[in-house]
Amino acid sequence: MRSGGFVSVSRPVITSIVLILSLYCFHVFALKSQLLTRHGGVTDLNAQDTVINYETCYFDQKIDHFGFLEDGTFKQRYLVNNEHWDQKGGPILFYTGNEGDITWFCNNTGFMWDVAEDLGAMLVFAEHRYYGESLPFGQDSYSDTKHLNYLTSEQALADFAVLIRELKRKVLGAQESPVIAIGGSYGGMLSAWLRMKYPNVVVGALAASAPIWQFPDMVPCGDFYKIVTQDFARSGLNCDVNIRRSWKAIDNISATDDGLQWLSGEFSLCSPLKKTDLDGFKAWLQETWVNLAMVDYPYEANFLQPLPRWPIQVVCKHLSFDPSSVSDYQLLGGISEAARVYYNYTGNCPCLNTSSTATGNLGFIGWYYQACTEMVMPLCTDGVQDMFEPQDWNFQAFSDECNSLFGVRPRADWAATVYGGLDIASHSNIIFSNGGLDPWSSGGVTRNISDSVVAIVIPDGAHHLDLRYNNEYDPHTVLSARIQEVEYFKLWITQARKLQIPG
Amino acid sequence: MRSGGFVSVSRPVITSIVLILSLYCFHVFALKSQLLTRHGGVTDLNAQDTVINYETCYFDQKIDHFGFLEDGTFKQRYLVNNEHWDQKGGPILFYTGNEGDITWFCNNTGFMWDVAEDLGAMLVFAEHRYYGESLPFGQDSYSDTKHLNYLTSEQALADFAVLIRELKRKVLGAQESPVIAIGGSYGGMLSAWLRMKYPNVVVGALAASAPIWQFPDMVPCGDFYKIVTQDFARSGLNCDVNIRRSWKAIDNISATDDGLQWLSGEFSLCSPLKKTDLDGFKAWLQETWVNLAMVDYPYEANFLQPLPRWPIQVVCKHLSFDPSSVSDYQLLGGISEAARVYYNYTGNCPCLNTSSTATGNLGFIGWYYQACTEMVMPLCTDGVQDMFEPQDWNFQAFSDECNSLFGVRPRADWAATVYGGLDIASHSNIIFSNGGLDPWSSGGVTRNISDSVVAIVIPDGAHHLDLRYNNEYDPHTVLSARIQEVEYFKLWITQARKLQIPG
Repeated sequence: MRSGGFVSVSRPVITSIVLILSLYCFHVFALKSQLLTRHGGVTDLNAQDTVINYETCYFDQKIDHFGFLEDGTFKQRYLVNNEHWDQKGGPILFYTGNEGDITWFCNNTGFMWDVAEDLGAMLVFAEHRYYGESLPFGQDSYSDTKHLNYLTSEQALADFAVLIRELKRKVLGAQESPVIAIGGSYGGMLSAWLRMKYPNVVVGALAASAPIWQFPDMVPCGDFYKIVTQDFARSGLNCDVNIRRSWKAIDNISATDDGLQWLSGEFSLCSPLKKTDLDGFKAWLQETWVNLAMVDYPYEANFLQPLPRWPIQVVCKHLSFDPSSVSDYQLLGGISEAARVYYNYTGNCPCLNTSSTATGNLGFIGWYYQACTEMVMPLCTDGVQDMFEPQDWNFQAFSDECNSLFGVRPRADWAATVYGGLDIASHSNIIFSNGGLDPWSSGGVTRNISDSVVAIVIPDGAHHLDLRYNNEYDPHTVLSARIQEVEYFKLWITQARKLQIPG
Repeated sequence: MRSGGFVSVSRPVITSIVLILSLYCFHVFALKSQLLTRHGGVTDLNAQDTVINYETCYFDQKIDHFGFLEDGTFKQRYLVNNEHWDQKGGPILFYTGNEGDITWFCNNTGFMWDVAEDLGAMLVFAEHRYYGESLPFGQDSYSDTKHLNYLTSEQALADFAVLIRELKRKVLGAQESPVIAIGGSYGGMLSAWLRMKYPNVVVGALAASAPIWQFPDMVPCGDFYKIVTQDFARSGLNCDVNIRRSWKAIDNISATDDGLQWLSGEFSLCSPLKKTDLDGFKAWLQETWVNLAMVDYPYEANFLQPLPRWPIQVVCKHLSFDPSSVSDYQLLGGISEAARVYYNYTGNCPCLNTSSTATGNLGFIGWYYQACTEMVMPLCTDGVQDMFEPQDWNFQAFSDECNSLFGVRPRADWAATVYGGLDIASHSNIIFSNGGLDPWSSGGVTRNISDSVVAIVIPDGAHHLDLRYNNEYDPHTVLSARIQEVEYFKLWITQARKLQIPG
C-alpha cells in the first residue's frame, strides 16, 4: 500500500547545500535568492530616516495544525505598533511574513507605516515559522527532514489565522477590528491565500508582487526572464544584446588558463576562477541581472545592495557599445563594469564574491526546502526571447536533486490543487499589485478577475514598489496605486462594519 | 519551547474503548453513533427494490497532504456510475464519504440515483480515509496514535480535491465537467467545507443535515436534545413527560436487587443488569430516543433498525398514559414496550443488547478519534427544556478522557478557525438542507446566509430525508426541497459553463 521513503539529511549535508546550489542549481537558486535574499540587506536608505517603534511579542503556536500526534508549541514572534490605532474597533493591518527575519519586512514595508494614521490602524508583522526567531524546534529546526516537516505554507497560514483570532480575543478593543492581510512577494502569496482559505479571519488582502501563478502549467516558464531582458533592453542601447553575447565570450575566453586568469582579474574576483567554476560564475552573473530587474527603483535605495536610482540605466551605460565592434575582452570588460554597479556602488568592496549576490542569507535553506516541496515554480530560458543561455525546465532533475538533498520530492500539482490555480474567481476582496518592471509579474495576477478580485499594475514599478515608503521620486503610477489600495481597504472596512450591525 | 507529549495507545486498549464509551462517555457516544452507525444497517427497505450498478475503483492517495516526510500512498476506494452521464462535459455528482463504508452511503443516497438521468450526471462516491477499505496503513491503521495521525477532515478534503482533479484529467470527456459535492451528516459538512476550501474543484455543494455549527460557542449545546424532546412531545400525548419521569423511576426500582432483576426481565435484556451498569443502561435508552428522532421517517424503512412509518408515533402509543396515574413499574413497562418498537419491530430479536443501539460498528473508533481531535461538538441537557437527566458539557473531562484513550487532546477552537464558524458569508454556491425533526438541525444552517449560501428547511423531515430515494409517502416539503436542490445544481452548472466560454 505504501511507497516512497525517507532519507535523512544530516546537518553537514545541509550546510553544504549553499555551495552546491550556487554551482549547479541555477534556476532554483535564482528563484530562491530573488524571493528571499533581497530582504537580507540593510534597511532602505530612505527608511533609515524614519524612526519606527514596535513591541516584540511571542505567541505559543502549535507545531502541527494538521495532526494531533505532535502537540508541542513554539514561540512565534510578531511585532506590534498601535500608536495610531483607534481602539474602538480600528482596523488591523497584518503583514504575513515571508521567508526571513520579520524585522526586515517590518523595516521595509513603509507603506503600512505611512497609512496607519489615516486608517487608525494597528500594525502587526507576524514572522513565518522556521525563519528569524520563530523556530519550531529551536536550533534543531533545520537539523533533518523530520524537523523540517512542519515548514509548509499551509502551516504558516494556520499560524496567521490562529494568531489573528487570538489577538482579536485578547486585545481590548480589537474584538470587532477588521483585519487586512498585507504581504509582498511570497508574503503576498500568503496574504492572498490567507483571504482565500480563511475569509473568516481577514476581510481582504493586498498581495503585492505575488506570483501565485508561477506554478506548473499556469504561465509560460520563459516569461520571467523575458521581463528581465526587456528591462535591460529599454534601459540602454544594445544593453540586452551585449549581455546575450557575453555567455559565449565567457566560454571563449575561459577555454585557456590565461583567459581564466584574465577573467578573475577583470572581475576582481575574491577567488580565482577554475574551469569547474564556470557554471557557477555564469549563474552568479545571471542572478545579478535578475536582482537588478527586481530592484530597479526610481531612487537610490539599499535593498539587496546599495544602488543608484534606476540602477539598470547606470549598468547599461557600460554596455552601450555596438556589439559587432568589440572583442570578447572588450565586451566582458563592459560586463565587469556593469556588475560593479551592483556589487560596488559604495566603492567599499575590495573584491567580488561569486558565492552570493545579495547580503544576508537568513532563510536560504528554508526557502529551498519549500521550493523542493510545495513551491514548485518553473523558470526557463531560450536565449532568443531572453538574453540568457537556453535552459529548459526539468522537473525530474529538480525532483531528484531535492530527494538527494532533503529526502523529499516536490509535488508539482499540489499548489494548483490547494490554492486554486488560475481558477480564483469565486474569492473576494483581494488586490493583486504588480510592477511592470518586476520579473515576478510573470506569475502575477495582472488582470481583474472580478469586481473584488482586482489587479493593479504599476508600469514603472519594480518588485513591490508600492509596499515601500513614499518617496519624492516615486512615479505617479505607484502613488496612484497606493491611493487605490487604501480606498479598497476603506471599502472592506465599511463592508465588515455593516455586517456587524444586527439586522 | 515544546510542550505536550505522545502516549501510545496499544491495540488491546483501543478494542476495549467500545465498552468504556458505552458506559461512561455518554455524550460523545451519542454523537458518534448518531453520525455514524445509522449507516451500519442493511439497505433501506425501499432501496432494496432498486438495482444499482457501479464500478469499484481505487486511487493512490498521499497519506499526508500537508507534510513531505511521509510520502507513502494508500488505495482510496471510490465507486462510479456513468450510465446516464453525458460524456460531453456532463456534470459529476460527487459524494463526499463520511465515517463509514462507502458502499452504504452509495446504497443510502437514492437522491443521487434518482436525479442522475435528468442531469446527465456521472455519480462518484468517494470513501473517507480510515473507513471501509480506504485504510492508509492497512490493518495497522488503528494500531496506535502515530498511525491515526492522518485521520483528519483536512486530509479527507484534500483526498477529495486530488481525486476530483485526477478524474477530470483522466476520464475522457470529464475535463470540462462541473463537479457538485453532495453529502449528508458529517459527509454534508465535508461537502460544504470542500466548496469553501476548494472552490476551484467543486462548483457547488449540497450539505444535507450537516451540523457545521455544532461546535463550541456557536450554538447552545442544549438545542440538540430539545429537538429530540419536541419530536416525542408532538408525537403523542404525555410521551415526553413520561420519558422524563422514567430516569427517576429507574433509579427507584434499581435501588434493590429485586428491582434490578425486574428491570432485566421487563426489558428482556440479554445480560442481567448490575448496579454498575445503570449509567450505561440509561445512556442506551437515551440514545434509543435520539436515534428514533433521527430516523423518524414517514415510511417504513431500515436505516439504523427496521422500523415502521413515523416510528415515534408508534413508540408514543406505549407512553400515552397520565403520568400521575401510574406506578414506576407501569411507567417502565411502557418504556420497555416503546424500546421494543425500535429494537424488535421485526419480532426476530430474542433479547435486547444494551451495548449497541444500531447495527454495524464500522468506523466507530475512527469517529471517536475525530471527536477527540477536531470534531468537538458539545451537547448538554437540563432536564427542563428536554426530557433527559441534566448533564453539562465538560470540555476538560472530555479532553482528559481523549488523552487517556488516544494520547491526543481535542482542540476546541480549531474547527471555528479552519472552517469559519458562523462567518461563512463570503462563500458561495452551498445549499444547507435540514429536517425540522432532525436533532442535528440544532447545529445546522437553517437561514439564508446570502443569495448563494442558502438554507432549505424540510419541516417534517428527519436526518437528511432529502438524500433518500423518492417514496410515495414523502411529504411534499421534501419533494419540493429536492426540486429546489436540482434547480440550484442546474444554475451552478450553467454558471460554470459560462465561465468556460472565452470572452
